[in-house]
Amino acid sequence: MAHIIGTSLPDMPWQDKPVNTRGPVWRYSQNPIIPRDATPNSNSIFNSAVVPFKDGYAGVFRCDSRSVSMDIFPGFSKDGINWEISAEPIAFGGDAEITVREYRYDPRVCKIDDKYYITWCNGAHGPTIGMGWTQDFKTFYQLENAFLPYNRNGVLFPRKIRNMYMMLSRPSDTGHTPFGDIFCSQSPDLTFWGKHRWVMGTINGDASAWQSKKIGPGAVPIETSEGWLMIYHGVINTCNGFVYRIGCALLDIDEPWKVKARSRNYILGPQELYECVGDVPNVTFPCAALTDADTGRIAIYYGCADTVTGLAFTTVDELLNYMKEYPLA
Amino acid sequence: MAHIIGTSLPDMPWQDKPVNTRGPVWRYSQNPIIPRDATPNSNSIFNSAVVPFKDGYAGVFRCDSRSVSMDIFPGFSKDGINWEISAEPIAFGGDAEITVREYRYDPRVCKIDDKYYITWCNGAHGPTIGMGWTQDFKTFYQLENAFLPYNRNGVLFPRKIRNMYMMLSRPSDTGHTPFGDIFCSQSPDLTFWGKHRWVMGTINGDASAWQSKKIGPGAVPIETSEGWLMIYHGVINTCNGFVYRIGCALLDIDEPWKVKARSRNYILGPQELYECVGDVPNVTFPCAALTDADTGRIAIYYGCADTVTGLAFTTVDELLNYMKEYPLA
Amino acid sequence: MAHIIGTSLPDMPWQDKPVNTRGPVWRYSQNPIIPRDATPNSNSIFNSAVVPFKDGYAGVFRCDSRSVSMDIFPGFSKDGINWEISAEPIAFGGDAEITVREYRYDPRVCKIDDKYYITWCNGAHGPTIGMGWTQDFKTFYQLENAFLPYNRNGVLFPRKIRNMYMMLSRPSDTGHTPFGDIFCSQSPDLTFWGKHRWVMGTINGDASAWQSKKIGPGAVPIETSEGWLMIYHGVINTCNGFVYRIGCALLDIDEPWKVKARSRNYILGPQELYECVGDVPNVTFPCAALTDADTGRIAIYYGCADTVTGLAFTTVDELLNYMKEYPLA
Amino acid sequence: MAHIIGTSLPDMPWQDKPVNTRGPVWRYSQNPIIPRDATPNSNSIFNSAVVPFKDGYAGVFRCDSRSVSMDIFPGFSKDGINWEISAEPIAFGGDAEITVREYRYDPRVCKIDDKYYITWCNGAHGPTIGMGWTQDFKTFYQLENAFLPYNRNGVLFPRKIRNMYMMLSRPSDTGHTPFGDIFCSQSPDLTFWGKHRWVMGTINGDASAWQSKKIGPGAVPIETSEGWLMIYHGVINTCNGFVYRIGCALLDIDEPWKVKARSRNYILGPQELYECVGDVPNVTFPCAALTDADTGRIAIYYGCADTVTGLAFTTVDELLNYMKEYPLA
Amino acid sequence: MAHIIGTSLPDMPWQDKPVNTRGPVWRYSQNPIIPRDATPNSNSIFNSAVVPFKDGYAGVFRCDSRSVSMDIFPGFSKDGINWEISAEPIAFGGDAEITVREYRYDPRVCKIDDKYYITWCNGAHGPTIGMGWTQDFKTFYQLENAFLPYNRNGVLFPRKIRNMYMMLSRPSDTGHTPFGDIFCSQSPDLTFWGKHRWVMGTINGDASAWQSKKIGPGAVPIETSEGWLMIYHGVINTCNGFVYRIGCALLDIDEPWKVKARSRNYILGPQELYECVGDVPNVTFPCAALTDADTGRIAIYYGCADTVTGLAFTTVDELLNYMKEYPLA
Amino acid sequence: MAHIIGTSLPDMPWQDKPVNTRGPVWRYSQNPIIPRDATPNSNSIFNSAVVPFKDGYAGVFRCDSRSVSMDIFPGFSKDGINWEISAEPIAFGGDAEITVREYRYDPRVCKIDDKYYITWCNGAHGPTIGMGWTQDFKTFYQLENAFLPYNRNGVLFPRKIRNMYMMLSRPSDTGHTPFGDIFCSQSPDLTFWGKHRWVMGTINGDASAWQSKKIGPGAVPIETSEGWLMIYHGVINTCNGFVYRIGCALLDIDEPWKVKARSRNYILGPQELYECVGDVPNVTFPCAALTDADTGRIAIYYGCADTVTGLAFTTVDELLNYMKEYPLA
Repeated sequence: MAHIIGTSLPDMPWQDKPVNTRGPVWRYSQNPIIPRDATPNSNSIFNSAVVPFKDGYAGVFRCDSRSVSMDIFPGFSKDGINWEISAEPIAFGGDAEITVREYRYDPRVCKIDDKYYITWCNGAHGPTIGMGWTQDFKTFYQLENAFLPYNRNGVLFPRKIRNMYMMLSRPSDTGHTPFGDIFCSQSPDLTFWGKHRWVMGTINGDASAWQSKKIGPGAVPIETSEGWLMIYHGVINTCNGFVYRIGCALLDIDEPWKVKARSRNYILGPQELYECVGDVPNVTFPCAALTDADTGRIAIYYGCADTVTGLAFTTVDELLNYMKEYPLA
Repeated sequence: MAHIIGTSLPDMPWQDKPVNTRGPVWRYSQNPIIPRDATPNSNSIFNSAVVPFKDGYAGVFRCDSRSVSMDIFPGFSKDGINWEISAEPIAFGGDAEITVREYRYDPRVCKIDDKYYITWCNGAHGPTIGMGWTQDFKTFYQLENAFLPYNRNGVLFPRKIRNMYMMLSRPSDTGHTPFGDIFCSQSPDLTFWGKHRWVMGTINGDASAWQSKKIGPGAVPIETSEGWLMIYHGVINTCNGFVYRIGCALLDIDEPWKVKARSRNYILGPQELYECVGDVPNVTFPCAALTDADTGRIAIYYGCADTVTGLAFTTVDELLNYMKEYPLA
Repeated sequence: MAHIIGTSLPDMPWQDKPVNTRGPVWRYSQNPIIPRDATPNSNSIFNSAVVPFKDGYAGVFRCDSRSVSMDIFPGFSKDGINWEISAEPIAFGGDAEITVREYRYDPRVCKIDDKYYITWCNGAHGPTIGMGWTQDFKTFYQLENAFLPYNRNGVLFPRKIRNMYMMLSRPSDTGHTPFGDIFCSQSPDLTFWGKHRWVMGTINGDASAWQSKKIGPGAVPIETSEGWLMIYHGVINTCNGFVYRIGCALLDIDEPWKVKARSRNYILGPQELYECVGDVPNVTFPCAALTDADTGRIAIYYGCADTVTGLAFTTVDELLNYMKEYPLA
Repeated sequence: MAHIIGTSLPDMPWQDKPVNTRGPVWRYSQNPIIPRDATPNSNSIFNSAVVPFKDGYAGVFRCDSRSVSMDIFPGFSKDGINWEISAEPIAFGGDAEITVREYRYDPRVCKIDDKYYITWCNGAHGPTIGMGWTQDFKTFYQLENAFLPYNRNGVLFPRKIRNMYMMLSRPSDTGHTPFGDIFCSQSPDLTFWGKHRWVMGTINGDASAWQSKKIGPGAVPIETSEGWLMIYHGVINTCNGFVYRIGCALLDIDEPWKVKARSRNYILGPQELYECVGDVPNVTFPCAALTDADTGRIAIYYGCADTVTGLAFTTVDELLNYMKEYPLA
Repeated sequence: MAHIIGTSLPDMPWQDKPVNTRGPVWRYSQNPIIPRDATPNSNSIFNSAVVPFKDGYAGVFRCDSRSVSMDIFPGFSKDGINWEISAEPIAFGGDAEITVREYRYDPRVCKIDDKYYITWCNGAHGPTIGMGWTQDFKTFYQLENAFLPYNRNGVLFPRKIRNMYMMLSRPSDTGHTPFGDIFCSQSPDLTFWGKHRWVMGTINGDASAWQSKKIGPGAVPIETSEGWLMIYHGVINTCNGFVYRIGCALLDIDEPWKVKARSRNYILGPQELYECVGDVPNVTFPCAALTDADTGRIAIYYGCADTVTGLAFTTVDELLNYMKEYPLA
Repeated sequence: MAHIIGTSLPDMPWQDKPVNTRGPVWRYSQNPIIPRDATPNSNSIFNSAVVPFKDGYAGVFRCDSRSVSMDIFPGFSKDGINWEISAEPIAFGGDAEITVREYRYDPRVCKIDDKYYITWCNGAHGPTIGMGWTQDFKTFYQLENAFLPYNRNGVLFPRKIRNMYMMLSRPSDTGHTPFGDIFCSQSPDLTFWGKHRWVMGTINGDASAWQSKKIGPGAVPIETSEGWLMIYHGVINTCNGFVYRIGCALLDIDEPWKVKARSRNYILGPQELYECVGDVPNVTFPCAALTDADTGRIAIYYGCADTVTGLAFTTVDELLNYMKEYPLA
């Protein structure tokens, strides 16, 4: 059996798998955990990231305001389920040429060494990958944008690999982007990036049509004894719009642009009313995962219909076995 | 405090603001007030207009038939909530060159002096603003179309301003129109129109994205001690379609193309199931408002998902304060 | 009164028409009859076809897998409501040049003489009409595709007409196809097809807008004393996507490309939550009907939101009368 | 034989019809008469209007600058062929709320009584019809825009009809507009406009495909004993772009929205290199005509490939006969 | 060396290959051979087909009229270069249900046994393949359309293969069709068609981008000792429109849907002014070829810029060798 | 007067400015200097780069083959006008993971220290900026791609600035890209890039419409006493396609993302037949410039209609003065 390489998190949110569950992932019974109006001026709260922090959890949340302005907000929780989210967006320190804000959305949080790095989609004459860090989720420092526009879904690996920081991302265009592959980039210092490698793309034809239009990395990759477990989103274009579902893949531990396995089946998709109905119908969009190395448990945080935040559970074995059961030839 | 300049309407529909309401507008607890099947052959009833009439209320309703033919129908109500809508569409008298019917939708009703003027989107080799009037909601007379195609959402002011009739509208194209600003036009006689002025447009960027794709006037402007209070719709284009929300603005009392204040936040948007699910998901579309000058109460009638009709409440102070609290810089 | 020309089916699924039903068709009270997860690896089960078989019913079902691969599966039922659907797709015997599988969806089943012919949308360098037959729903033989790509919704007539097999279809393009008329084609042998005739097209303007974008044949035509009763789908393009509704027409018994009557009103459309919400919102799509010649009863099987399968009831008189009541001028 | 109702212009530009000319219109042998660089900073000079003035001619010219800014410029000529065009655009006097300049293009000039009225496509939060007048082509006064956006090709009739000023125009959208019909509007005072009537539209199908995508009025209508002779442009959409050609129609003398005849054939189209190659290939676009009532001669000024200006000749009899020879059924 | 299997045609149009010609095909020095105005009412003459006939040549020509109506016209020539084209389009005898004319374009002519079969793009509620025949190019009989819409470029093989008539075609959509592969269909009787096979498609990526958007058959295939030599068109989509070029392929003699060789390089493309400038710039489109079995000479007739007709020369060895020199891997 | 900071190049191609030239740039009288068929298998040669090399010139040329495959080829010239271009594309040495070729186009060449760096649009799962170097134009070494896809027009500065290599580029999408701004990126080592800064964007509205759709850097920036002189392309979208013209800007010498001046007028645009007619009509696209520090002379190499290569002349004073004469406010 595979195991997670990481720390113990015995009190992480968890529910056992219900009997008769057909897939490898099951929803939290009280979903959604964060409603659209959890802060005083929010229109919606979704596509957000959490990490273990001190004796509980911290997170960075995408809260669109009631003017439908997109920004990122810090939050804290004792149990990972009930969250206190700040009414004020994150204010970054840093060079004024860098910290100019156009819009900010879809944050991820990745702990490397003793810092919590935040990456997000950052408006800078087009969407690109913004970066910053904090140690306490109170004071935040902004770094240079990682890439030129146009890019979304920048996701760091939680440690250097062969002495390089690495980031997954999905280059895009200026709008709703009807294409999208996953790439991996490297950096010696988190400022200058290069040695870009294509990781994987969409699947043409009928074999795995849920990921036929675009794909993008979701949660910070989970280090396992088998390789990096990447939870990602995939999109199909129906005659009535995009459907965003969730899949997983296994990446080589040293050269993570090499794909060792990939889910032909999605592992979660919009089926519940709060996933199918909202500001953008039919979206399940993962941005974070908590893991417990002792048990292999994984808790996935995912945005629902671009409106609320849901929680779902799985284990490393569930996912690895499912990729074997339904391999993408 | 601001006050409404108009008549008393003590028995207008009303519910007090529930505690813990976050915004300035709250829904009627029994929404929707008009179901999709309220007439024998209706597919949907929405985007409709009501006015005080005699000891109750009258209205003009958009009822799409079960052939999805769009037309406008008269209706009456004692309380403004329970409506009797005619099974037969309005038949206008007038010049045969004018009364030819292609299609008719999204009516507004505006009382000026002793007549009730109806404006609607009128098919005439393209959508434009049809006009007619009644004194009893039984006999109707059609006037010349106000403008050349292509136009929608013609909304009259309830009195002459500087000796001119004035009308707000949103010029458009022949289809679903991915743009749209609000203009104000003048007429000495309701037949010939000119002196067109741009009032306000969509908001680029992130500041108020709910109104970034198109906007259009909704209810007949409400005269207040601060200026004309305009309730309008704004639209964002998501990757899965348009979302129609409701906002408000304050226009100069004498030169109503000059905007004195405008809501950065929407005041109502699709959140309830009957607003999010229907023939056109995620639409809240205001076409009328009842007001009481004594109390400043406002009751907004709005179409829901192009399927049913909803009712919501606010006051002139709620709206004016909200524009101050969330100003559009 | 008209009558169905066919066999008795006294035990077919049936519920009497509820009082206060406005249209000619009413839903089964326990809809949907087939949930999305009725087979081990299904994402959705919809747009499927059933026929009387032995002392019960058999069918061919479109089950999209959890990789969103589209295929067709056999199933059996005692009562036409509770179905056992195979976990394995149909495997056809036949020439290897013919049986290559790209994708298969939207099956119809038509009994002619002693064989059950299956037609479906078959991927063959583009969608076209695949054909095959079975006598026991266990062993299946594939025939040549009927037409060149690009085509969908091939529906056979249940007997030869003037010594020719006949098939309705809707030529299309390679994608979501924003157009579509119904044509009728003839064949002496089910292999070579010709003498193509246009049957009917979309309706421009306001008269019957629910069928203004594209139309396509649905169930196998029902032979009646008045002509062939065709149940078909029609589509309107709203600003938030397509809405698929159901209508009916009456075709000449000998020259079925001649339309004797056609519904101006739709007979069923998306109104229930399971029809409005799902992988493709706002779809009702008929693919089959059971009939009882003794009573004129008709049970329509239709896909709901490209996710689940519904059942609705009517009679031949309901439909013929409704076409007379709401004629398409 | 028909005759022109108007003034004599014996010295107007003219060349006799060459033998073997197939159509009713023939080009000036020295075309183009105005090159793209006729003013110091012009990129192109085209879609321009001329009138008899004093003992020669005056005109208003569209000169796009080398920054590709669009504006209108006065010019003078002794012979109608050799032109002196001002290096400075027209500066209008008038209300500052009116004279704000966004962009100005495609002018027409129409003499009514003792004034020369200029209409053009005027940027005012979208293209609409700007209006102004002059008596000397040195001092110009601007009037209110005639219509709400979005509109192009406003063309006045050269006298009041039934005591009303009348204007033809082609309502459009904000961009390159893939549709367009001709409408006629009326005004008692040139400020307020109404009583809009549809004149004629594009031709579907194969009968007259050169005018299947959009049409718009060109020169000021020519009064004849048979009715108003309107020279207009028509557009087809090929797989490699629009082709703009020229046609003519005959309008009722009192109700000019009633079409008495219309050319099935175009009368001139892009065939010469200066018409087929330029900033916008394949454009011939008429904006003005000179006429001589004594002879029935007509000289058409037309833009070529949005780059230079051409001249072509015909007579009223040539055009009326051609419409009879190739009638649009 | 390969040879053509066919008849001698010693007097066919011919010019020897100029020295320093880089490709396998060279233009006739007096191109274009047919100007746009060769008939009294033609706008353009292009995409036309010729065959040997009696002691000279006959042909069917696409002449778009000056109303831009598309039709096909017979013509005769002594030398294959100077043509007399009828001023009247072909009038077909046959069943009135078949001979209804919507539009007709892009004819091919194929002699099988003692008849000359004409295939063309025929409007029949959408473009499809019309068929007819003549023995004298004076009296013409129409057959059933070969296929359902939407299809273009139907090209017959000049003899039965394995006792079946065969036709190449390119299924399309209702408009300018941004896709297109070549298919082969079979018929026992020229009325009913089936056993459709995919022949070849567009080439993705950089290897042969001139044929990356769509391809379609051109001239009647030439029987050679190596297989059927097919001359076809290929299209690339540049940022300023489609470019149509000419290529060739070698098909199996008995199963002509099997491709034995295919040109990576185009063999002719728009380079001369009459090919680059016209109603549709940058089009070279082959519809016919004359061949001489004695010498292997081939004369290709091709439309130029959808405006005029050109002639180019090659030999069977030039083409076969070029495919070997520049093979499509 | 300003002067170029660089080397002498007394024998560079040159012609004096003709009298009566209106703009700051004039064409070489024998244009185009490189025809489309200058190599054995070329379809077109354009968008190419040259540098002084030894006692003459070397260059890297975009030659699309007659299969319309895009690649880059070395070439040499004694005089900068007559070129010998290799028949074989450049073969790069380097890591096999880097040198995989998809397609290569639009090269630039920049000498830094003792190496000639080549940048080009490099296919790598989408277009991005490829990099390589040579010292003799015979042996070439490939470096890592500079950026993630999707990007075009990577142009290096000819020296380090504040100890950083710098590159201009234009991020794009996967297709014909209807948008595009110029950015500046920095690198310590030519492998890792960061500190991306927006330089300048398109111009909305009428002020400078030739650059309203997209812009991109062209030649290697020319160091002058006033700042970096950047020659770039700008694009307008007409109803018949894009027009590519040439402009210039002056960038801050130390912070080259700060624009000190910019041309409102284009400095060269398509006007000659070889610029207006070709595979992509109406394109002038600069990729290189030769300069002489002694005289301030500049020779611009530019692609014409994506088909041939042209040469044009100017001086540093001409360009700087023109920006002052026609400033972009």
